[in-house]
Formats: sequence, structure tokens, C-alpha cells
Amino acid sequence: MTASPGPDIMAYIDTHQAQHLERVRTFVRQPSISADGTGIAAMADLVAATIREVGGSAEVVPTAGHPAVLGRLEAGAPKTLLFYGMYDVQPVEGEDWTVPPFAGEVVELPAHGPSVVARGVFNSKGPMAGFFNALAAYRVLGAPPPVNVLFLIEGEEELGSRNLPEVVAAHREVLRADAAYFASFSQDARGIPALYLGVKGIIFMELVCRGGAWGGPQTRMIHGSNAVWIGSPTWRLLQALASMMGRDEQILIDGFYDEVADLNPDEEHLLQRLAEVFDERTFLAQNDVQRFRLEGHGETLLRNYLTLPTLNIDGLASGWVGPGSKTVLPHEARARVDIRLVPHMDIERTLQRLRRHLDAQGYADIEIHRWEAYPWAQTPWRSPAVQALVAAIRDQGIEPYAWPRIAGSAPMYLFSDVLKMPFVMGGLGHGGRAHSPNEYATVTGLRLFERSVAGFLQRFGEM
Amino acid sequence: MTASPGPDIMAYIDTHQAQHLERVRTFVRQPSISADGTGIAAMADLVAATIREVGGSAEVVPTAGHPAVLGRLEAGAPKTLLFYGMYDVQPVEGEDWTVPPFAGEVVELPAHGPSVVARGVFNSKGPMAGFFNALAAYRVLGAPPPVNVLFLIEGEEELGSRNLPEVVAAHREVLRADAAYFASFSQDARGIPALYLGVKGIIFMELVCRGGAWGGPQTRMIHGSNAVWIGSPTWRLLQALASMMGRDEQILIDGFYDEVADLNPDEEHLLQRLAEVFDERTFLAQNDVQRFRLEGHGETLLRNYLTLPTLNIDGLASGWVGPGSKTVLPHEARARVDIRLVPHMDIERTLQRLRRHLDAQGYADIEIHRWEAYPWAQTPWRSPAVQALVAAIRDQGIEPYAWPRIAGSAPMYLFSDVLKMPFVMGGLGHGGRAHSPNEYATVTGLRLFERSVAGFLQRFGEM
Repeated sequence: MTASPGPDIMAYIDTHQAQHLERVRTFVRQPSISADGTGIAAMADLVAATIREVGGSAEVVPTAGHPAVLGRLEAGAPKTLLFYGMYDVQPVEGEDWTVPPFAGEVVELPAHGPSVVARGVFNSKGPMAGFFNALAAYRVLGAPPPVNVLFLIEGEEELGSRNLPEVVAAHREVLRADAAYFASFSQDARGIPALYLGVKGIIFMELVCRGGAWGGPQTRMIHGSNAVWIGSPTWRLLQALASMMGRDEQILIDGFYDEVADLNPDEEHLLQRLAEVFDERTFLAQNDVQRFRLEGHGETLLRNYLTLPTLNIDGLASGWVGPGSKTVLPHEARARVDIRLVPHMDIERTLQRLRRHLDAQGYADIEIHRWEAYPWAQTPWRSPAVQALVAAIRDQGIEPYAWPRIAGSAPMYLFSDVLKMPFVMGGLGHGGRAHSPNEYATVTGLRLFERSVAGFLQRFGEM
Repeated sequence: MTASPGPDIMAYIDTHQAQHLERVRTFVRQPSISADGTGIAAMADLVAATIREVGGSAEVVPTAGHPAVLGRLEAGAPKTLLFYGMYDVQPVEGEDWTVPPFAGEVVELPAHGPSVVARGVFNSKGPMAGFFNALAAYRVLGAPPPVNVLFLIEGEEELGSRNLPEVVAAHREVLRADAAYFASFSQDARGIPALYLGVKGIIFMELVCRGGAWGGPQTRMIHGSNAVWIGSPTWRLLQALASMMGRDEQILIDGFYDEVADLNPDEEHLLQRLAEVFDERTFLAQNDVQRFRLEGHGETLLRNYLTLPTLNIDGLASGWVGPGSKTVLPHEARARVDIRLVPHMDIERTLQRLRRHLDAQGYADIEIHRWEAYPWAQTPWRSPAVQALVAAIRDQGIEPYAWPRIAGSAPMYLFSDVLKMPFVMGGLGHGGRAHSPNEYATVTGLRLFERSVAGFLQRFGEM
């Protein structure tokens, strides 16, 4: 039995890359910054129009925030795949780019060859455009895709998918599928593709310390010389934060690690294979980092990556940091903090532990503003959708490696826990620098991605 | 012997307050923000023109930064007073004002009556304008002032007087005087005037932590989920700072307090008198603060204020603090820090101690960027200039209180240590909120200030 799609679809993909690349460039040229709303409405319309262009029906669904796009492409197939995607991107403010971030320029990158350098091309407009390209190929060839495709494409992923739970709840009846798929260019610089079986959860919050009953200026910055006898919200927040993190980088919040668990046997097996191919030096080089902070290498390093929760400071702000000197005693200090949750950490319990820690340390006044949160999610290695994507990649003569989870977060729990379906994330293709300046995706990777998608749809339809 | 100036000068001041107020408003309407240069050149010209208007000669002296204004008003008197002032003001960015900060509006303040609310009116354009008003009165009356007046008015006081040392060095020969005077509205809300006999020194610096050999992203923010295995410059700087400050607010830098000394007998005597009138509740209310961080009250509190050095965080910046969520692992973190130096702390020795502390704690990579620094300065209580101002204030029927020093900083060492002359700071008048929104000075205080200046010139000339 050959499980590959007919040669027509692959040949069509191979011979139409110039056109297909244009769709990627069109997508990234439309800014869609969820943080400030720039271009959001236009991008939602573009996504809906694209679903219709490939033969589906689509609607832009308003939410309390940015709209989602829902759609369906009926293929008369027994199986249905739910394509989950995002059309929003991270802000670019304060970043130093070599090309304008929304110009869709193709640049010859020394290490990667011709690549689109643009905000969102890797995370995640490139893969989304590639998925549409594959579906467009079926349409041009007059053959329905091997599976029906549902679309759920949100515009608030970079805001923590605030309104996605409500969209899912309101459309639960139509969001019936055999699996959910999140497309990504998952080959590393050497070409080795990764499959992700899970995500860590996230709590994103702001901690705020202001002057109050404990002391400190309450309503405005005052002259810095008063620090001799007036307390500082800046020092106070700083010491509260320092109380949570040991010099050995152990998190000191009571009970923080209580749920940290070993990997299960399937995951241990995947980890061993992963350790064989994971290239620490390349990973560090790609991130412009000289060394890992975790001790150990190989399996030890990766096991810690997979199993440890984190407490990260995303941003700090207090006082005067504009041009010139200004010696002030600030009246407030703010830290944006994210906690990444591993199985089986719970959002509420973790927040309670943080609150208890602050209270116990004498910082009951420090406010925790929860901005967004969603839980971790896992799909089993043995689920058919995962195995279909693995087979499709092997059909391309490439051996994928599965990560039991990634440290990043995405609201996959909506599929695994709410809609009760397995999910799979990945695909061929290469890119990098998500959330960073000079985000990129290679031109050659686009073709490989589209081939892996066509193969995946075929394999999944036959399972 | 009557030491008061003739009734003419006081009467003239009393009867020309409407005109005199206009000079204050004109001065504050001309922005002169040294941090970004706004209005600096125009303000320097205005100051020089005003010196000429009151009968002196003046020149705008260029420096490597903002110009200084030098001038001389020859009265044919045996004594010469060096008026040291500043024409620059703090930035207003990010501050919330009830009136535009450069409109020179007169507002009825509930606690203070009619007041000019404007950036710089208290610190220090109001007193400077008042000093010119007093000199203008002599000119109109056709009587030379009782002392010759030299002017040294800089435009970089809020930048730490970066180029003032060079201006002083270059004009040392002409800057010969019997005492230096820095004018201020020094009455508190109850009307009790303060005299300042010294200032603390200051080291203003930026501490910077970047990714490097120790770990951490080196050139750009990366995806926040990497915090599980990549070090954070933000946590690193935060822990380095926390290592310097105990929970009891003791500074933990080795040797930091070594030079802290008791007050001398004159200062102890002044402190006792000060404690009788210093109103802690009013001070806290004026600064919108609920309590002091130092233990104790009265003499104990004030003694600590006078004798303790401080380590203050003026500003903190790292990562993403713009609108919306952005989960990043920052590649650098910055803290603006000032240290206030008490006698007999030394700038270089203190910086060495800070460097040694960071090195010993394992933070040799954290950079100390020294932005500006100048030493503490003291003038003796018994110096004639101080006694002349005390007498002039008493002549107005008001009892002044002398502070052995203030916690704020000004480059008075240029007078005490470089030009070798005593200095005196103060004057009647009331204002507040220096370096803060809604900085103000009262209208009635202006008249009192001008009377105290006229009396001071008379008393000093006769000594």
C-alpha cells in the first residue's frame, strides 16, 4: 500500500513555488499586531477570503477582543481535521531589523539561503499560507483533499488567546473533528524536523508595588535624596522578586515544584532519540547565547527543559529611564512575569502559592495582576494524527524527532481537554527568531512544508 | 546700629510685586530642560539679558554641554557676593500636571493660596527671578547694592553640573568673592525658614547587565519560554542589586558606612533646635508618604537623615513593558542608581567598593557606567555669610532654622573646596514639589524672599 498522495499534487506544489511564495509575502505584508490592534481587521478578512479562495466557507466571528475566523472546507471525506491557527503577530517596537518588518522582503541569509525576513513569517503566517497553498493545489487539480478541513484561526494568540475559549464554547457543535493540527516550520537549520506532543501552560501577570501603608511615595515620584528616609517601591519589588529566586536559580516559592513529574516511558524513549540529534551548540548559536544555565547536557539538559516550570521576568519598569539624569524616588515599580506550567501544575494553585509567598515575606501589598493564563496540554505519541504526520515526513525521506513537549505555550488544551481530540503540531520547513527582530523562514522550506502537509492529509485520511 | 536696608528698598519691593511676579512667570514660561536641550539657548540668553537689565555685564559662556552665564554687577562695594544659580529644569515627560508645566499659570492652591504652578518655579527659577527683582529695585531707586555681585548661572545642574567644574577652572581669576550664595524659597508650609549649611555628594550611574560568557541572550530578546534553560540578565541584575540591600534596608556593600561620622558640636546644637520645629507629619503629607522608613523620630530621625549615605534606584528598565503581552527573555537590564555621599565619603573609593562588591558576588560582568558625580560640601555655621542671612531673616521677624546639611546634592564643593569661599543657601519664600508634577511657589513668598535678599545683601555688606 502506498500512502503517498498522487504524484500530481506533489508535482503541482513543486512547480508553483513562485506563486506560493507570494501568498506568504502577502500575508506578512499585512501587519496584524494584536498588542495594539494594528491591521487586525484587514488580516482577518484576508484569512477568510483565502479560505473561500481554496473552496471553503468562512466567517469572521467577532469576540470581546480581536475577531476569530471560522471556516469549513467540505471534501466529502470520512475524516475531518481541525486546522487551528493564528493570524496575529508580536509587536516590533524597540526592535532593530535589517529590513522593514512588514515588507515581506526576500533576503539571502548566509546560513539559510533565500528567506523571507518579516514579523510573523515563522510564527505563524508562513505555515498558515503554506497550508492554504496545499489546499489550493487540490482545488486547481480538481481533486478534493483527503480530509474535510475545519478552520479556527484566532487573532489573539500573542495576547494569550484571551477570547478563544469563548469562541470554542460557542461553536462547540461545529468544531467536531478527528484531530486538531497546528502548522509550523519545524526543521532545524540542519533539516531535522521536530514534532511537538505538548505545550507548557502559562500564567502571564504584572506585579505592582506602590507606596502605601508600608511607606514610599504614593502618588508621584519625589526627589531622589529622600531615599535616605522614605522607602522605595522599586527596592521593595526588587527584593520581593529576589526572594522568589535562589542564586542557584531554584525557584523559592513554597510548593512550586510539587507537581513536577518524571516523563512516562513513551516520553523517555522519545527523549533518548531526541538527545541523539539535538544540537546544543547550534541551538545556542541561533539564540546568540554562550551557555545554558541548566547544568548537564544531552538527556539531562533536555529532561530538565521538558519537566521544569519557570519563573521569567518579561519586563521591568520603574522611575525615570528617559534621556538625561533625573534623580527620583519612584512611587511605583512594575514587573511583567510569566510562569510556565508543566504537567500537572494548576493555574489557580500556582497563583495561590505565589500570593502566599509574597504575604509570608511581608509583601501583602504587592499586587498580582493576572493578565492571561491557560493550562498545559499533551497529546499521546500513539495518537493517529501524530503517527500520520510522522509517516508523511518519513515519506519525504526525512526522519522526524518528537519532543514530548515544548517549553512554549499555546492553548492546545482547548483541543485536548475541551473539544476532546488529539492534536498534532509540526511540518517540514525552516525558520526562526520568533518574537525577535529579523524573524525569518526559508524559501526552500516552504516547498517541503507544503509537501509534508499534502502527505499528512493523505496519511491521516487513510488511517 | 541698624543693619536693615533703608525703608525705600523694602517699600519698593512691597509695592512692585505685580511686576516682580511677571519676571517669575516669564522665566518659567521659557522651557529649559537640560535633559534634552529644550529651550536651553533661549533661557541662557534671557538670563544674560536680565543681568544687563539690572545694571550688570554678562556673557553666555559655551561649554561642552549647555552654556553657562557669567556676569558682574559692580557696586563699588568692599565686599563681593558670588550668586550661583541654575537656569535649567527637570524633564516633565510622563508626569501628570494639573496645568501645563510651562504656562506660568497662577493657581489658587487650597493649602498655599495663590501660587505659580510650573516646572522650575521652585527649583530654581522663582528664587533666581526674585534675586533679580531685588537688584532691579536698587537700580530703579538709583542706589548701588551694598555688595558687588558676581553671577555664575549654569544650565546643567539637573545633569549633575557636568561642565561647571571647567567653567569655574577657566574663570577662576574673575570668580573671586567673599562668599557664594544659592537662592531658595526655604520656608516650609508653616512659614519656618530653613538654612542649609551643606549638601550630600552624589554618584549617579547606570548599572547594565547583558547576556555574555555567563549565559543569557547577548544581542536580542528571545522567546520567553527559553527561560527554562537560558539565563536572564534581568534576574541577574535584580539579584546583584538585591545583594546590596538588606531587608532591614542596611546597605550591604563592604565598607559603605566606614566614613559615616557623628555631627560636630555646632551641628548637634543646630539639630536639637531643628528637631523642635521639624514637623514630620507635614513633611510626609507634602510628599504623599504615610511613614518614614527610618526608625525613630525627632532628633534620631533627623540625625540619620543628616549622617547616612543612601543607595537609591532612580529607574529600572528591561524587556517589554509596552502595550499587550510579549513574553520575552530580555538580553539586557538597566538600573539607574544614585549614591548620596555624606562627609567624608569619597567618590572613587565608593565606586571601588561597589565594583568590589559586584565582583565578589560573581557579577564581574555587570557594567557600572558612571554618569556624573560630585562630592559633598559643607560651610561652617559661624561663617559671616551664613550669619548675615540668619540676621536678615530675623530682621523680618522670623526665626530661621539651620540644617547642618540637606540630603540633596549641588556642586557647592566648587565654592568651598575649589574657590575656597564659604557658601550660604536659603531665603524666605515657599514652594515645593521639586522634580515632581505640579511644582509650585507661592505668590506671597516672592515678596518675603525679595525682602530677605535685600536684607542679606545689606547685612553681608556691613560685616
